[in-house]
Amino acid sequence: MADDSESNASTAVDSAATDAEAACFEAGIKFGSLYHQFAGTPISPDSAPSLARAMEEAIENQPHCTDVTVDVRTDELADALANASAEYTELTGRFLEVEIVVEYEGWTVVTKMAMEDGYPLMRLEEVRNE
Amino acid sequence: MADDSESNASTAVDSAATDAEAACFEAGIKFGSLYHQFAGTPISPDSAPSLARAMEEAIENQPHCTDVTVDVRTDELADALANASAEYTELTGRFLEVEIVVEYEGWTVVTKMAMEDGYPLMRLEEVRNE
Amino acid sequence: MADDSESNASTAVDSAATDAEAACFEAGIKFGSLYHQFAGTPISPDSAPSLARAMEEAIENQPHCTDVTVDVRTDELADALANASAEYTELTGRFLEVEIVVEYEGWTVVTKMAMEDGYPLMRLEEVRNE
Amino acid sequence: MADDSESNASTAVDSAATDAEAACFEAGIKFGSLYHQFAGTPISPDSAPSLARAMEEAIENQPHCTDVTVDVRTDELADALANASAEYTELTGRFLEVEIVVEYEGWTVVTKMAMEDGYPLMRLEEVRNE
Repeated sequence: MADDSESNASTAVDSAATDAEAACFEAGIKFGSLYHQFAGTPISPDSAPSLARAMEEAIENQPHCTDVTVDVRTDELADALANASAEYTELTGRFLEVEIVVEYEGWTVVTKMAMEDGYPLMRLEEVRNE
Repeated sequence: MADDSESNASTAVDSAATDAEAACFEAGIKFGSLYHQFAGTPISPDSAPSLARAMEEAIENQPHCTDVTVDVRTDELADALANASAEYTELTGRFLEVEIVVEYEGWTVVTKMAMEDGYPLMRLEEVRNE
Repeated sequence: MADDSESNASTAVDSAATDAEAACFEAGIKFGSLYHQFAGTPISPDSAPSLARAMEEAIENQPHCTDVTVDVRTDELADALANASAEYTELTGRFLEVEIVVEYEGWTVVTKMAMEDGYPLMRLEEVRNE
Repeated sequence: MADDSESNASTAVDSAATDAEAACFEAGIKFGSLYHQFAGTPISPDSAPSLARAMEEAIENQPHCTDVTVDVRTDELADALANASAEYTELTGRFLEVEIVVEYEGWTVVTKMAMEDGYPLMRLEEVRNE
């Protein structure tokens, strides 16, 4: 039974997490890192591609992180700047679509970030054993 | 059987994660956020307590995060400054001990950060259903 | 004469900066540091005081920085949260009023940050020789 | 006379800064921003070029900033990794050489960052009126 087996794994004497749980933990670390390292960076339509690429390659350095894809929502960025007095703004979640893939001990975790109710929601998309 | 039930949960058609996995993902987000938001902050023995407190309260704002404890390793900080020409340095993992507790859908996840081989290693300490 | 030498210094062959100019440069460093270290930090009315204090003490570590005052604009923060689905948001310039004082080689520089046209404008308030 | 008025301005009743001082303040802001936005970013020899480019383009968005040049000290980075258990490290000043040029009201300010006594020292290289 799912509940029992999971409970066994995670509430045992040593409280060890399952490999799938550890893979999800690793995926979360990558998302928090990406967001809080780069939030606040000055960004414009011209500089968006280089920032997106740097974010991808920086986070791909982290352990177990096999792929990071950062897309800047250029329409949203253009809208923000159309109403502004400057030609750049600060990077925040509303300008980002991000997918991060982590592989850990045979588990693959796919995570995505999208805006929901005005907040950048990070969610688990897939947790699969290969 | 543990493997089957877990596999079922995470490789099903909708690839939905278990609540325990989601709780671990949330815990990872908090750790990545804490580290990459505050790494690089100027820190001295005098300013360490206020920074530690701010880190705790900032990350406790995040969803499902019930407790954050940040201890600055003041001996390590004093050592670093003893050999330096300035009276402060930059915050990095070697000066930190952190515990983060996340509660999500009945699951409690306890995570810790400690130095291992010169790197700040974040690990799952407990994943338990209450 | 101090006044003459200063003027000469800044346009001389070796392009050396005056002490007043160096003091202003130092003040700018502090402001950029404060803003980009802490922008993006999760903040709520409850956690605002500890973050403000940490920002002050962290930046006061930097060379020649004698005083930093950070006030969180709690009305603005409450307004932002009243229209939001979460109980916290990310720190950005619209929630901040900051004053930084730098002393360098007999010069005191007072700088402030305030919102102007939707951007956090950092400006030199006073540059005086004491 | 320009020289006199400048000197007067900076010590006058209203304590207004000179244009040269404001230019130096602007240059300082850029340096503090660059350093504290990106310090702590995961970096490896492979990802260094994309990060350097993103840093340049991000800071060039800021007002009055005409040119930013970021060179990663790859020898220093390789040395750090040779003694480490991982294939990446965190960005800090010891891996960077940076030049930032600001133009403000006819003044050009050239600033550089280099390591001195183990600290990343930011200094004014030139302040010239053109």
